[in-house]
Amino acid sequence: MKTLSTAKSHGGIQGVYTHASDACACDMTFAVFVPPQAADGPCPVLWYLSGLTCTHANVMEKGEYRRLAAELGLIVVCPDTSPRGEDVPDERDNWQFGSGAGFYLDATQEPFARNYRMYSYVAQELPALIAREFPADMTRQGIFGHSMGGHGALTIALKHPDRFRSASAFAPIVQPSTAGWSRSAFEKYLGTDEAAWRAWDACALVEDGARFPEFLIDQGTADGFLDDGLRPWLFEETCRNTGISLTLRMQDGYDHSYFFISTFMDDHLRWHAQRLA
Amino acid sequence: MKTLSTAKSHGGIQGVYTHASDACACDMTFAVFVPPQAADGPCPVLWYLSGLTCTHANVMEKGEYRRLAAELGLIVVCPDTSPRGEDVPDERDNWQFGSGAGFYLDATQEPFARNYRMYSYVAQELPALIAREFPADMTRQGIFGHSMGGHGALTIALKHPDRFRSASAFAPIVQPSTAGWSRSAFEKYLGTDEAAWRAWDACALVEDGARFPEFLIDQGTADGFLDDGLRPWLFEETCRNTGISLTLRMQDGYDHSYFFISTFMDDHLRWHAQRLA
Repeated sequence: MKTLSTAKSHGGIQGVYTHASDACACDMTFAVFVPPQAADGPCPVLWYLSGLTCTHANVMEKGEYRRLAAELGLIVVCPDTSPRGEDVPDERDNWQFGSGAGFYLDATQEPFARNYRMYSYVAQELPALIAREFPADMTRQGIFGHSMGGHGALTIALKHPDRFRSASAFAPIVQPSTAGWSRSAFEKYLGTDEAAWRAWDACALVEDGARFPEFLIDQGTADGFLDDGLRPWLFEETCRNTGISLTLRMQDGYDHSYFFISTFMDDHLRWHAQRLA
Repeated sequence: MKTLSTAKSHGGIQGVYTHASDACACDMTFAVFVPPQAADGPCPVLWYLSGLTCTHANVMEKGEYRRLAAELGLIVVCPDTSPRGEDVPDERDNWQFGSGAGFYLDATQEPFARNYRMYSYVAQELPALIAREFPADMTRQGIFGHSMGGHGALTIALKHPDRFRSASAFAPIVQPSTAGWSRSAFEKYLGTDEAAWRAWDACALVEDGARFPEFLIDQGTADGFLDDGLRPWLFEETCRNTGISLTLRMQDGYDHSYFFISTFMDDHLRWHAQRLA
């Protein structure tokens, strides 16, 4: 692991790091905020997964999480959203596939299966690195994210209910296997057999038996992607049918941007901190 | 005035606007945050002037001012740092002059005198526009900024002690007429007669009789520009000699970035809100 930058902020350290990833077969960059409480011992870890087109940097710059994370004593880890590099196959003019659009799944189709393994990266490889390199209490982990990353948070929590004590999302995609803006990517990553998609779809995971005790979701009513791509009511119905506790808050007049995310960042940090205490 | 974008954030509206500026003889873009309290009547106005290389967008995205401005009921106006456009003379490979480096002064030298009039723009033209287009109580104004913009805030406050009730700065330049990174720009904007520079230099303004009751300055000790460009101790000495109250806080380990600014943003917003109440 190589340190690209560190800066003191709110009494803690906001760093950016890079390492050679086995899972993605390329160098991967990620951001970690370590709060001042880490000087006194390991701190809980909160994972933030970003949305389409983002890198680690968007939420680091615009998410406004440091003030309260420093107060609550949370380590915040912000991975990239896909493998990147000259050797990584991509469709440069397609923002819904390839670079910036890894969908937190493990691709099975060529030529993408070698690099596009963001699930293995975020759920296995990077946690091991974080545990090794940072003052992290890995027995206390939460996960959240935005849009494609909100879906990543839901699915990874559903796959690892014993690892994560808390999960939430800002404006998540909830059923990518049926949304116009993600079906094409799923086909390229996973092939045409849609049965194989269900392991990477939050609603399908729950329908197929995955469980997590409770979720918090905030969704803006002025979000331009609400009806076509996000449709949180599908997840609401799935949770209702299976006894999962979902707090879905429709936030009047908010869009899909970081102006929305940062508005409700404090609420999410407190949600996680209470469950990671 | 034309609206480029608006987004709901923290209950208020973060907007970006453009208009044809007479002072700068080009189109100028600026950002305004209007807090929810504006629904009940005019709100005080806090001006934020950005540093070298920035546009209106940097502090809007990374400054983390909206949460507390929305709580305190402050309108926050974030102008650009220079005129811009194909017709505006510039030195594209020089980040300390021209685009992004207007230094909040009125240039007198050709070919810059036509456009580089950021003082007239920020101190006269834009306030008139804000008063006309926004629910602003112009009897309650404060001003702050960062680096070059911190110097802009100090000098504009010193020139208008009756207009501004409060002034503060993050890591300001305090004596640009003697700093290596600004002397070249001053010569191009103002000519070789250094007597003419004193009207655009915070220390010289105070030495020549300008007064403002009190300033707050935060400065990081790990700021790479501290010794060569910023040197707040020069302003500290000038204030001490003239009875101006200066709260200069040296912040251990902080650099020159928005990670530093956002850390102390709350303190500055409260400083201004108390004086604008």
